[in-house]
Amino acid sequence: MNNVPENPGLRRNPGSAIDRLVALFCRLPGVGKKSAGRLVYHILDGDPGYARLLAEELELLHRAIRRCSVCGSFTETDPCSICGDPARDHGLICVVERPQDVRIIEESREFRGIFHVLGGLIAPLDGIGPDKLRIGELLSRVRRDGAQELILAFNPTLEGDTTALYLQKLLQDLNVEISRLASGLPVGGDLEYTDKLTLSRSFRGRIKL
Amino acid sequence: MNNVPENPGLRRNPGSAIDRLVALFCRLPGVGKKSAGRLVYHILDGDPGYARLLAEELELLHRAIRRCSVCGSFTETDPCSICGDPARDHGLICVVERPQDVRIIEESREFRGIFHVLGGLIAPLDGIGPDKLRIGELLSRVRRDGAQELILAFNPTLEGDTTALYLQKLLQDLNVEISRLASGLPVGGDLEYTDKLTLSRSFRGRIKL
Repeated sequence: MNNVPENPGLRRNPGSAIDRLVALFCRLPGVGKKSAGRLVYHILDGDPGYARLLAEELELLHRAIRRCSVCGSFTETDPCSICGDPARDHGLICVVERPQDVRIIEESREFRGIFHVLGGLIAPLDGIGPDKLRIGELLSRVRRDGAQELILAFNPTLEGDTTALYLQKLLQDLNVEISRLASGLPVGGDLEYTDKLTLSRSFRGRIKL
Repeated sequence: MNNVPENPGLRRNPGSAIDRLVALFCRLPGVGKKSAGRLVYHILDGDPGYARLLAEELELLHRAIRRCSVCGSFTETDPCSICGDPARDHGLICVVERPQDVRIIEESREFRGIFHVLGGLIAPLDGIGPDKLRIGELLSRVRRDGAQELILAFNPTLEGDTTALYLQKLLQDLNVEISRLASGLPVGGDLEYTDKLTLSRSFRGRIKL
């Protein structure tokens, strides 16, 4: 099917409609050439209405979604539904790396405060300094709105640790409590299959009973 | 972000643009809720041009692709580029379950004959009898075009075995050689991690040196 020498119309286009869609799907994270092929044939085998709906939603996506001017997360309304919700605790701000972290935390239904999206983590090796992140906006929010507590919900990585340390120092003179998500054994995990760093953290963060 | 009570415009729609796209991606094979979320945020973080291109190709897909009237595979031209290629061996037909099998075999560049897509395999438990498959078309092709050899390239499963057996019996009076793809240890595989059935097949199909 890749071998279409006799059709001049196809020769102008790089590959068939199937090939082009496979190539586009390949650019998504975690989608290799084989899975991309499986996706395209699944769509082809299925209801054309599904493909049309998917096309419509993709076409709409960037137009429908903007950044919330308060927290920096993705939203359709500004401010977003969380920042604009008077029932939430506006004195408690959960600071996250990316907008998708807001979604993940919201799905756990564990948190009733509001959010602040930094838009990344400090990573000197990748050339990402504090000036590239929404840290100034965080400072203004803490000063202006008088937040009582910040929960830093970064991944437990080198970049997460660096960013947490930086924020802790930056905010130490302000009257705000700062905490970080506990790091340790995952629920249902197994000591035997836990890496040394995680184990060490779970010792340091041990909880008195 | 799921909690939008104050916006009547959104209340009419089930969920936000992000939620709707996540729900659509979830309907693809092998894409769970988490991966769907990752895909949507990746697209949202990226170039809007990519989302637009993906939307266009999805919109085009079912209109661009039809079934080849000869082999039954997906194609943009009829007959498809393989059936219409005089350089290929038209006496050698590779019989496959699905159109995507044509793509997989073509990518291996191992086969220079032509194809026949059955559109499924015989599966009595799922109510798929021979009458639901393109077996009549295969018979006509063999009789009319005088194919010398059929290679049955089905998966080595119960349904693949059943279909191969059925075709073998059906075609035994015609002057056509029938073979099936070898089944056995995958290249780079390990005896220790090979299941019993595969091992048994690799014994039965052993090759004299």
